Amino acid sequence: MTTLSFRLIGTDGAARCGEIMTPHGPVATPAFMPVGTQGTVKGLAPQTLRAAGADIVLSNTYHLMLRPGAERVAELGGLHAFMNWPHAILTDSGGFQVMSLSDLRKIDEHGVTFRSHLDGAMVELSPERAVEIQALLGSDIAMQLDECIKLPAPRADIERAMQLSLRWAERSRRVFAADGGLFGIVQGGDDLGLRSESLRALLDIGFDGYAIGGLAVGESHAATLRVVGEVAPALPEHAPRYLMGVGTPENILDAVVRGIDMFDCVLPTRNGRHGVAFTRRGPVSLKNARHAADPRPLDEASPCLAARTYSRAYLHHLMKANEMLGAMLLSEINVAYYQELMAGLRIAIAKRRLADFEVEAKAVWAQGDLPAR
Amino acid sequence: MTTLSFRLIGTDGAARCGEIMTPHGPVATPAFMPVGTQGTVKGLAPQTLRAAGADIVLSNTYHLMLRPGAERVAELGGLHAFMNWPHAILTDSGGFQVMSLSDLRKIDEHGVTFRSHLDGAMVELSPERAVEIQALLGSDIAMQLDECIKLPAPRADIERAMQLSLRWAERSRRVFAADGGLFGIVQGGDDLGLRSESLRALLDIGFDGYAIGGLAVGESHAATLRVVGEVAPALPEHAPRYLMGVGTPENILDAVVRGIDMFDCVLPTRNGRHGVAFTRRGPVSLKNARHAADPRPLDEASPCLAARTYSRAYLHHLMKANEMLGAMLLSEINVAYYQELMAGLRIAIAKRRLADFEVEAKAVWAQGDLPAR
Repeated sequence: MTTLSFRLIGTDGAARCGEIMTPHGPVATPAFMPVGTQGTVKGLAPQTLRAAGADIVLSNTYHLMLRPGAERVAELGGLHAFMNWPHAILTDSGGFQVMSLSDLRKIDEHGVTFRSHLDGAMVELSPERAVEIQALLGSDIAMQLDECIKLPAPRADIERAMQLSLRWAERSRRVFAADGGLFGIVQGGDDLGLRSESLRALLDIGFDGYAIGGLAVGESHAATLRVVGEVAPALPEHAPRYLMGVGTPENILDAVVRGIDMFDCVLPTRNGRHGVAFTRRGPVSLKNARHAADPRPLDEASPCLAARTYSRAYLHHLMKANEMLGAMLLSEINVAYYQELMAGLRIAIAKRRLADFEVEAKAVWAQGDLPAR
Repeated sequence: MTTLSFRLIGTDGAARCGEIMTPHGPVATPAFMPVGTQGTVKGLAPQTLRAAGADIVLSNTYHLMLRPGAERVAELGGLHAFMNWPHAILTDSGGFQVMSLSDLRKIDEHGVTFRSHLDGAMVELSPERAVEIQALLGSDIAMQLDECIKLPAPRADIERAMQLSLRWAERSRRVFAADGGLFGIVQGGDDLGLRSESLRALLDIGFDGYAIGGLAVGESHAATLRVVGEVAPALPEHAPRYLMGVGTPENILDAVVRGIDMFDCVLPTRNGRHGVAFTRRGPVSLKNARHAADPRPLDEASPCLAARTYSRAYLHHLMKANEMLGAMLLSEINVAYYQELMAGLRIAIAKRRLADFEVEAKAVWAQGDLPAR
């Protein structure tokens, strides 16, 4: 059996840079994982994704268990072969999507029962089944099933969900026997006491890595940072730390400063499909008419060829004409920008220059886009 | 001024292989031109298009004149720079789309007036303006404005449109002064007498190449072949011959046998977006459930990496899940298949083995797809 290992390379304050060794190669941290919901990162061929700098992608158990089905993916050689991505894959447990996408659901001690949004069939997902599905997919990093509730919520509800998630964590750990690793998920909403209780219990069980879940679900950025700032330093030094569902470049930077190693978010691809580019100078909306006659590329200094090559006028045209290539190029440019940001963070941490990097990156973001020509 | 030249390399019966030298490089013939309606071949980045084997793309004057506008494209350095395609580009005259896409239109001696499908503005297109627009785009091969009528039609209507197209041909030739070349378009519907009259008049004017227009508009394949079989041999040997809007692999092969050098069609990309792959064994509908568990690629012997790499099960999944990557991969696979077919035809003609090639290709198409596993 191949397990997961994490090597800490450097620190700068609470921030860390390192490397996760997975059955499908190394992942340099801090790492951003583009989201491949249905076994594909929307609009990007795998070789484009790799060229953009991604070491690892996240794929969604909920979507894949419903279509094409975990057993089907296993028959076809696993998710890496299926999606033609030979590098690392993290899968979520399916719990978050069950709770956000399916109308009818019942949560009890056993697990969650929900109606498939595809064919209306009733489907059960238990902690044990979530582990089994992720093993069938061949995930390098599997996540425990948890209950993720929307904030704000009464403390009693947050506590009940946290305690249930802990019992599910224990059941998940007990049955996990696949290659790769299993991550536990710290819950407890915005209550630092509950977060601390959740964390201690997870450490007692023992996982290959630890995620902070239940954030990026409606609370303020300040609340997120407060939780991250408390939880991250209490996590074990020699295991990767993953902040689920975060976020904007600013939010990622703020969390890296507080000691987070891994992130995932649909923003680079979703915003790309809607015509918004992420750049060193902050977001740029290509649908805006000010780009219509602008021959300049998005960013001449970008390591991403597409960001240096295509004119703003052409990207504007593609978005106005609703051409696929617009979504494809902006998704590529955005994933590459996120990866460039992570590479910059890794170098800054290794050189212990993170404070300079942070101040400079935020200053350039705040400057905003190039003035119109 | 750079002009167009055509070099005949070999013949086999009426079929020819050769090379068109354009201001943006050579085009090996027989050539298939993928269609980039709005300045992009749908779903394909330019480097993917090139890797699939395309020497030349077709772009649509009608769409580009309305958005972003020919003057805008010229300001931005021309269409090659705009779409980041440094190889050859043929543009149509806009006439065909005016007649098929705009509701309100008036055709008279001067030209055609139509209502833009984008903003409802009234737009005029004359033979002179069509030449001017194509020069602004920087086209390597410009087409004369013609009137293309739907078949079947009364002989008198076909003749009137053919005569008008001839007068427009003369006006187009008179004003054409750009780099590259201008093609005249033989009209005359399915009437061989009118076709012959059109052709003789065009030869008197003199063009850099000759197209057969007004086909693939509702007539039978037999009628198309009858016209092509009469017109092609009467065209000058040392100029390229272009059959507009054709077609399926079979139709292309049949027209190459009759002496056609150039083709364009939306089929490879349009059918790709709808889940149909073109292969050596004929069309394969990836949405069909028989592919759902099939680990085999579309065609192990294809020169196209995507056709050899992704499983049918994955392509099926992408189409069922309505993921962009499905349309992207099938468009790439289809354009590559068309280019592979053209390369095969060129070699067969050069070796004077076209009859063998035709019989074998048709036999394999007729065999159909691999049996289900």
